[in-house]
Amino acid sequence: MPKPSKREDLLASALETFHTRGFHGTGIKEIADAAGAPKGSFYNHFSSKEECAIEALRLYGAERRLDMLADPTSPPLERVRRHFEFLRDEIVDRDFTRGCMFGNFATDVIDHSEDIRAVVADSLRTWHSAIAAALTEARRDGAVQADLDPDVTACFLLNAWEGTLIEARATKSDAAFDTFFRMAFGAVLR
Amino acid sequence: MPKPSKREDLLASALETFHTRGFHGTGIKEIADAAGAPKGSFYNHFSSKEECAIEALRLYGAERRLDMLADPTSPPLERVRRHFEFLRDEIVDRDFTRGCMFGNFATDVIDHSEDIRAVVADSLRTWHSAIAAALTEARRDGAVQADLDPDVTACFLLNAWEGTLIEARATKSDAAFDTFFRMAFGAVLR
Repeated sequence: MPKPSKREDLLASALETFHTRGFHGTGIKEIADAAGAPKGSFYNHFSSKEECAIEALRLYGAERRLDMLADPTSPPLERVRRHFEFLRDEIVDRDFTRGCMFGNFATDVIDHSEDIRAVVADSLRTWHSAIAAALTEARRDGAVQADLDPDVTACFLLNAWEGTLIEARATKSDAAFDTFFRMAFGAVLR
Repeated sequence: MPKPSKREDLLASALETFHTRGFHGTGIKEIADAAGAPKGSFYNHFSSKEECAIEALRLYGAERRLDMLADPTSPPLERVRRHFEFLRDEIVDRDFTRGCMFGNFATDVIDHSEDIRAVVADSLRTWHSAIAAALTEARRDGAVQADLDPDVTACFLLNAWEGTLIEARATKSDAAFDTFFRMAFGAVLR
């Protein structure tokens, strides 16, 4: 029986490597090397690079801090803002590299793996729903326009966010984030 | 002296292959094979896969039909809408695959190639400017709110578009496009 801790080491290393280099840019040997494990041991824990990538995506999703969006101790619109600020700070701290692993996998590999496509779609849906729930509360509190559609708005904001990461990475500049916050919390949510 | 037509064949094949499989997912042999050329001949025309990718990105940019955004025979806001409809139809016709090559390269390779990063940033800037020019005309005509900032709005819309492609590819559904058009031409441009 493999020890759980070695699996956890490999998964942490897979998350790091996939996030940094993408699906196609990552080899199993790199994942194993970074975990200090022989390449062969990878297959004691994962049946394929694809299965490992799916587990890494789930781990990444758990780190997105969607719980911040449901925190009852602060007003809902403030939670949405802080959520995106938290994600922005992550990218700025990494010198505008890496971006969002869901977006990366969506452009890198989902045309070629139905299983990864399904996990990315499911992850985005969970994220949409968490934002939509906060927007529903904000509308009830009168903090946004009364005719706001929480679901459609949440999808649009999340997509604008994913595109913002593309601009921020390409330009290596804060300007894309400034645009996002100004438009999201000015034009879209009013 | 290599014949120009063979270079054009290789470039067309590179555009197709990079767009379908991404930078890391594409090998020089695949590009040469698709152009019906021996692998060695690739290096008569391009010094590296990176240089070829940069040429392919420029060719892709030329196909984005930014001229539609400046066409004086239709109203500016209509041009912006038709531009995005043109891009949407391209993706739907490909069964929601491929997405935008700028976005793909931004998430796949720009952390690892400064030259490709610069071309993607420049391409996005050119695209922003073409949308911003149409929005400036729309504001002058009173077709959008008087306090609209054309530059910031153009960046935000383009980013929302890039993220819309991520959702559309992940869900293989028109819904992301419906969200984009409803929000872009309802909430953002009013």
